[in-house]
Parts: sequence; C-alpha cells; structure tokens
Amino acid sequence: MEEFTDKTYTIKELAQLVGADLYGDPDLEISAMAPFEAAGAGEIAFLVRPGEAMAVNAAALIVPVYCKDLPVPQLVVENVTYAAAVIHNHLLRRRFLARGLHPSVVCGDDCHINPEVSIAAGVVVGARVKIAPRVSIGANCVIGDDCEIDVDTVIYPNVTVYDRVTIGARVILHAGVVLGADGFGFVTDAVGNHVKRPHVGRVIIGDEVELGANSAVDRANLGVTRVRNGVKTDNFVHVGHNADIGENCLLVAQVAIGGSSSLGRNCVFAGQVGVKDHVKVGDRVMAGGKTGIHRDQADGAMVSGMPAIPHRQWIKAKKVFATLPEMARKIRELEKRIKEFDKN
Amino acid sequence: MEEFTDKTYTIKELAQLVGADLYGDPDLEISAMAPFEAAGAGEIAFLVRPGEAMAVNAAALIVPVYCKDLPVPQLVVENVTYAAAVIHNHLLRRRFLARGLHPSVVCGDDCHINPEVSIAAGVVVGARVKIAPRVSIGANCVIGDDCEIDVDTVIYPNVTVYDRVTIGARVILHAGVVLGADGFGFVTDAVGNHVKRPHVGRVIIGDEVELGANSAVDRANLGVTRVRNGVKTDNFVHVGHNADIGENCLLVAQVAIGGSSSLGRNCVFAGQVGVKDHVKVGDRVMAGGKTGIHRDQADGAMVSGMPAIPHRQWIKAKKVFATLPEMARKIRELEKRIKEFDKN
Amino acid sequence: MEEFTDKTYTIKELAQLVGADLYGDPDLEISAMAPFEAAGAGEIAFLVRPGEAMAVNAAALIVPVYCKDLPVPQLVVENVTYAAAVIHNHLLRRRFLARGLHPSVVCGDDCHINPEVSIAAGVVVGARVKIAPRVSIGANCVIGDDCEIDVDTVIYPNVTVYDRVTIGARVILHAGVVLGADGFGFVTDAVGNHVKRPHVGRVIIGDEVELGANSAVDRANLGVTRVRNGVKTDNFVHVGHNADIGENCLLVAQVAIGGSSSLGRNCVFAGQVGVKDHVKVGDRVMAGGKTGIHRDQADGAMVSGMPAIPHRQWIKAKKVFATLPEMARKIRELEKRIKEFDKN
Repeated sequence: MEEFTDKTYTIKELAQLVGADLYGDPDLEISAMAPFEAAGAGEIAFLVRPGEAMAVNAAALIVPVYCKDLPVPQLVVENVTYAAAVIHNHLLRRRFLARGLHPSVVCGDDCHINPEVSIAAGVVVGARVKIAPRVSIGANCVIGDDCEIDVDTVIYPNVTVYDRVTIGARVILHAGVVLGADGFGFVTDAVGNHVKRPHVGRVIIGDEVELGANSAVDRANLGVTRVRNGVKTDNFVHVGHNADIGENCLLVAQVAIGGSSSLGRNCVFAGQVGVKDHVKVGDRVMAGGKTGIHRDQADGAMVSGMPAIPHRQWIKAKKVFATLPEMARKIRELEKRIKEFDKN
Repeated sequence: MEEFTDKTYTIKELAQLVGADLYGDPDLEISAMAPFEAAGAGEIAFLVRPGEAMAVNAAALIVPVYCKDLPVPQLVVENVTYAAAVIHNHLLRRRFLARGLHPSVVCGDDCHINPEVSIAAGVVVGARVKIAPRVSIGANCVIGDDCEIDVDTVIYPNVTVYDRVTIGARVILHAGVVLGADGFGFVTDAVGNHVKRPHVGRVIIGDEVELGANSAVDRANLGVTRVRNGVKTDNFVHVGHNADIGENCLLVAQVAIGGSSSLGRNCVFAGQVGVKDHVKVGDRVMAGGKTGIHRDQADGAMVSGMPAIPHRQWIKAKKVFATLPEMARKIRELEKRIKEFDKN
Repeated sequence: MEEFTDKTYTIKELAQLVGADLYGDPDLEISAMAPFEAAGAGEIAFLVRPGEAMAVNAAALIVPVYCKDLPVPQLVVENVTYAAAVIHNHLLRRRFLARGLHPSVVCGDDCHINPEVSIAAGVVVGARVKIAPRVSIGANCVIGDDCEIDVDTVIYPNVTVYDRVTIGARVILHAGVVLGADGFGFVTDAVGNHVKRPHVGRVIIGDEVELGANSAVDRANLGVTRVRNGVKTDNFVHVGHNADIGENCLLVAQVAIGGSSSLGRNCVFAGQVGVKDHVKVGDRVMAGGKTGIHRDQADGAMVSGMPAIPHRQWIKAKKVFATLPEMARKIRELEKRIKEFDKN
C-alpha cells in the first residue's frame, strides 16, 4: 500500500505510457485514479464496458473503444484493466524515502546495509546480512544471519526471515510472512517416535515476487526451496521444503504446495488448492478451488476435484453427483422391472 | 483471556443479571465459575441436563428446571449455556488497568492517544493515529499511519495493522492478526507477467468484532473491506479485498472469503469453507465444513459440498457416493440381463 | 535450523551411533552430510537404492546392503533414511551458546530465568515466568504471565505465547506460532448476538513437540488444551480449545482440529484435513489429504473424503465418480430398452 503523491501527469504522458490512442486535450493534468462513480476533477477512471449516455464526473477515461458520447478526454486501449493498473501504479509512484535505520534497530556484525534504506523500529537483523538500496523493512521484522535482500524490496511489519535466505529485487513480503522455517520432514523409528531430518538447505525468492500476509516458505532439508520471478501468492499460502514454484505462478489464499513438488510457469491455483509432495506440475496448469493434486500434471492442464481430474469432466460428474439419490432410485426401479420380466 | 478478580457477587445479583428464577439463599456469595466436576466453595457451575441424584460440590448451580433433589441454590433459566456465559463474563469483569505507554513504544507525529490506555513494550505506532480510552495493545504490535481504534478494544501481541484502518469499539484482535495488507489483485500482460493493481482502499472493522489468531483482512483496491459489528472469526480466517462480512457472522477456522464477496447477517460457516470472489451470500446462510461457495446464496440457505448444493441433498448424495462401486456393478448386471433378453 | 559446526567424527563413531555394519577404514573423519550428488571430501551421503556402477565423490555412504562396487567406506543399516537423520543430527550438534538476555528484553516481576539461556532482542516476557536451562527465544517473541518453558526448547522469532501456557522440553516453535489465544466459543442470544464464552483454561505443550510456522493452539475455556509428547505439526495447523493431540501425531500443513476433539497416539493426517469439534479419534488413524472427519474413528482407521469413509472405499468410489456422466447415460439407455420391452 503506497501513500498518495502530489505529482501530476499530462494525459498525453499517460497515453504514451500504455500506448493508448488519445482523444481530447493532451495537456489535461491528472493527479490520481478513482472508481468511475467517485472520480472528479483531476482524476482518471476506467470503463471496461462503456454504456450508453451516462453522467461522467471523471476528468478523463480509459476505454476499450472511442465513445463519442462521453464528454471527456479518452485513452483508448485494448486491455482496459491492464492499462488502468499501469497508469494507477505510475500515478502512485514516488521517490523512495530513505529513513535509514531507526535507533532501536539491532544489527549483527559484518552487515552490508546500503545507506539508502528504511529500516523501522524494532527490526532485528542478524550477522553478515546484505541489504541493497531502496529496501524498506517494516517495524519488528526479524532477519536472520547471512540473508541478502535486493533492491526496491518492501518487507511489511512482523515478517520473519530465517538464516541464509536470499530475497530478490522489487519483492513485496506482507506482514507475518515466514521464510526459511524448517520443512516438515521426519523419520519414524521402530516404536513410533519421529526423528527430525535436519533442514540445512536454503530459500531463494526471485524478483518481483509478492507473498500475502502470513504466508510461509519452508527451508530445504538439503538444497533449495525456490519461489521464482514474478510469483504472487495470496494470504496463508504454504510452500513446502524443496518445492520449486515456477515463474509468474498465481496462488490464491490458503494454497498448500507439498515438499519437493514443482510448478511450471504461469500456473493459476484457486483458493485452498493442495498439492501433494513430490508432484511435478507443468506450465500454465489451472486448478479450481479446493482441488487436490496427487499426480503429475501436463502443461496446460485444467483440473478440479479431489483427487484432481480434468476440469470439464469434474463439472459434468459433479452435476450428476447432485442427482445420485435419484439415480439410485432409477436403478432399483430397473432391477424391479427386470425381475418382473423374469417372472413372465 | 482475562485474569481472575477477587470480587464476589451475591447469587441474587447474578440471578437478576440473567433474569433467572432463584431457589435458595439469595445472599450466598459467588466468586467464580468452574466446571461442574471441579466447582467447590464460592463457585457456581451449570448443568445443561441435570441428571438424577448426583454429588454436588458447587456452591450454586445454573439449571434449566428446578431440581428439588439438588441440595444447593439454583438459578433456573431457559438457556443455560447463555446464562452461564453472561454470568461467567460478569464474574471475570474487572476495572481496566491503564498502564499507559511503555517507555519502549515508538509513536509517530500528531497521534491522539487517550491517557487511559495500555500500550505494551515494543509497540510501534504510526502518525496521526487515534486511540480511544481503555484500549489495550499487546507487545510488539505495529499500527500504521492514520488508524483509529475505538474504546475498550483489546489487541493481542504481534498484530499488524497497516495504514488507514479503522477498528471499532470492544473489538478483540488475537495475536498475529494482519489488517489492511494489499488484496490479491493483478492484471496479466500479453506475455504472462502480472502487474499489481494498487490497493489504496481501506479496512473498517465494526464494534464487538473478534478475529482469531493469525487471521487476515485485506485492504480494498478502491473502496472499503468491511467486517461488520459482532462478527467473530476463528483462527486463520481470510477476508479478501473489498469483501463485506455482515453483522454477527461466525466464521470457523481457515474459512476464506474471496475478494468483493459479501455475506449477509448471522451467517455461520464451518471450518475450511471457501467463498469464491464476487459472490453474494444472503442472511443466515449456513455452510458445512469444507463447503465451496461458487454462486450467490439466498437468505437462510443451508449448503454443503464443493460446489455447494443444499445441505440435505448433499447428505443424501454423499450416502450414495460411498456405494458407487456397488451401483456400477448393478448397472453392469442390468446391462447383461438386457442383453440376455435381447438374445431370447 | 542449526548452524554448521567444525567438529568431525570418525566413521566408526557414526557407525556405532546407529548400530551399522562398517565396511572400510574406521578412522576416516567425517565433518558433514550432503546429498549424494553434491557430497565431497569429509562428507557422508546416503543411498536408499544403490544402483549399478555410479560415480561416488562422497567420502563415505550409508546404504541398505554392502555394495562391493562402491569404492568408499560404507555403513550398512536396515533403515537408511532413519540412520541418515540420526547421523546428520549428530554431525550438526553443538554446544548451546548462552547469550543471556539481550539488553532490550523486557521482563516482568518474579521471573525465574536460568542464566544459561539466549533471549534475543525485542523479546517481552511477562511476570512469574520460568525459563529452564538452554532455552533459546528468538527476537520479538512475546511470552505471557505465568508461563513455563522447559530445557532445550527453541522458540523462533515473532512467536506469541499467552498467559499460563506450559511448554515442555526440547520443543521447537517456529516463527509466528500463537499459543493460548481464546478458543472459538460463543453463545447466541435470542436476537442473534453472540456472547463470548470466557476462555480461562490453559495450554500444555509436551516434550519434543515441533509446531510449524504460524500454527496456533487455542486456550481451553475451562480445563486444558493438550499437545502431547512428540507431536509434530507443519505450518498453519489449528488446534481448537480443549482439544487433546495424542503422542507422536503428525499433522501436515493446514490441518484443523476442532474444539474438544481428541486424537490418539501416532495419528498421521495429510494436508488440509479437518476434524469437527467433539470428535474422538483413536490411535494410529491415518487421514488422506483434505479429509473431513465428522465422527469418532476407531484405532488404526484409514480414512479419506468429506465426510470421511474408509480410504479404500473412497478410492473406489472416486474412480466411479469420474465416470458418473457415462453411468447416467447407461441408465437412460437401460430405461429406454425396458420401455421397448414393455411395448413388445
């Protein structure tokens, strides 16, 4: 969550930013984005499906086709929500405010912390930690020994990063995230006691990753747990030890990825999906809410259900499922009829 | 969790508190509540279903009907567990202990913090925050800029509240709660990279809300995410951006409510229920454990299953589900018989 | 996650530790364990299924049978992964480093804290807390009043322990764990408002328990919530108020155990399993991923599905489930045929 800035841009600048066709006064100044209903002077809004004559109070609009009825400057683009997001981010951009280290910050030996950072009150940093320019760390976070955090990364309050975790550039970690806790690995002896398998591996978080509040990525026992560039997770997402989450995957709330499982690029998993350990999921796999993935999945698969089956098959089977009592009645009826035939 | 107090009440006072019919000495003094088996002198217990002759060590009892066999004073009420909860809360009540701000608390500029508060060690408060009388904030919490916290609210340790969050009166936030993290909203470009949709909206938590440990309520992208008066959540509950949780909803552990979805009043969702984004759920909707709600639900609906269907239908279908192999066998048998008829 | 040590052991010492048959030079010195592919000089690796001629760079190997083709010393054991875990833990062992209390630690009155502990920066400890030798508490943890923590327990950063919680010996609590938050218990009045049932009970965590990141164990309303010796949980596991988790249970990520439910010894629940409140689960019960347990389960039961049914029955029923549309078609066909017979 960024604070608002006071900077304004001409609508021409915004049009160039997203390659839009601009209709109207190019020098109009825009300072903010607002929902269509709430937008007013100096504010740009967007319309995914412009309707007929409607009251427009926004100063300008992002639209999919030029609407000559709309009495304000228009940016015509192919993908309205995409252009709106790019423009909104641009309007919210501001120079990084380097507050340095709050006096209460505790820091171990031999750290390399760039002076252009903001490390808030109560943060505890281990030894030999490297923090790059324009990193912001929220209050009461704890960063372990031998970690590295690359440029422009934002870590919100109360995050815990264990030892030897590497975090890429432009990453966002929301509050309560835990990186590098021991994975869940035990070996059971003859009488049923569990011996812990040591977890001495690492966690590597790529660039442009965003992890939702209270999510957790476990440390590998040996080797590395990876969350690759561009992955975004919602809140409460669990990534097990030695897992490998491919570039640009989207994992919605409460998804759990088992140990040593891997996801290819650009997978999209809806909320509460679970993936068993040691499963290999291909690229662009989509899983419906609450899917349980037990087996390897080919590139482009669309799955649902527990255990996961092709999504279309699941949809059809679920429709029949709801009619099962009726189906059972029909079978009893058929059996009765057959018996009658037998008698005759 | 409140500490015990030394204050005592006469049983007459307690009877009046819950409108009970009192049998026995009205001046008997009660100092605490205890389970029936453990209660002793000065302690009141409750019996939902009073049995035949049983040993009673409690000083007094809350019961649904007068039991002349029980040798102790009795409070006769219609709803025993309700009366017991009201009396128990009353016995545990104590004057708010205003410890003020611990010397280690870090506070931004222009805050309005009532002197009658308790803000524990390590708490970090942003700028322009308003904190009303008798608010208690546990150790190492982080409160963002421009937040407001109303009277008698209790925030347990290690809670994170992002900027511009409003918290009502008599709210309880358990440890690890995160309010106001960015919602999960991205727009994907032509090559599969995800652009973050800025989340500049707010979170408003009503009065008498209680949120379980490590729960999270996300910030709206534009507009407001609302958790209305009297909502109670268990641990690990996820409320997505722009969602609206109606008054007095009960959400059991690990429930996830998708972005922009709304719940009416007094819904009860069992554990691990998921609601898709942009779904409108009516008043008093009940959902069984692990239900997946994909579509709008009418007032009073009782649903189960994934996807959700009426609860009774689900119960019946699930019974048949367990017999599916048997059913498949019967169909094969029928097909064989029909073939035999064909031959003859 | 332990740091590496510089200590070395002879391979003879390691063989004795796990009762292995040793082939090769008994005085060979080993300093670390590594994956088979990465192991080099001074490092031991293990092979669960030794293949034919393979390049070995490890200094020694743990194997299930003596392989005369392998040109390095070998420890032959029955259970390779178990022996490997025991040896790996042994190699990583090091003397406890007692750093004492960081100057920023805030501590209540009448605590008994052994001097041989490590309590990191920002930790806040309540009153009357007892902390035994060789306990390590990570930065920014909060420990409530009247807690007890037994020997050799490790608490990672940002953990919250409420008042009156007892933690056993050799316990590991990962970051973000919450112990002792109020259980989810309310009584609803005639107009639908929920009155909180006070939670004045306790939490008792046994010896050798390990709780994954951001897990939560709720306080009992009256009485005790118990997590018994040797229980291990993955991340995001929820244990409701008054629950009782039997010795050596393994609960994988996002498992939720309802209030007042009990598990026997050595249960194994896969990820995202849910147990309703007031359910009694026997010893050695195994539940597949996403199982919903609604009823009591006998010792040794293996269950899956929602609601839970015997695992084998579920596997068979799920196979048929995927073919339901086909089955519905067959029934329609049979009905048509029967009608044709009727006509003739």
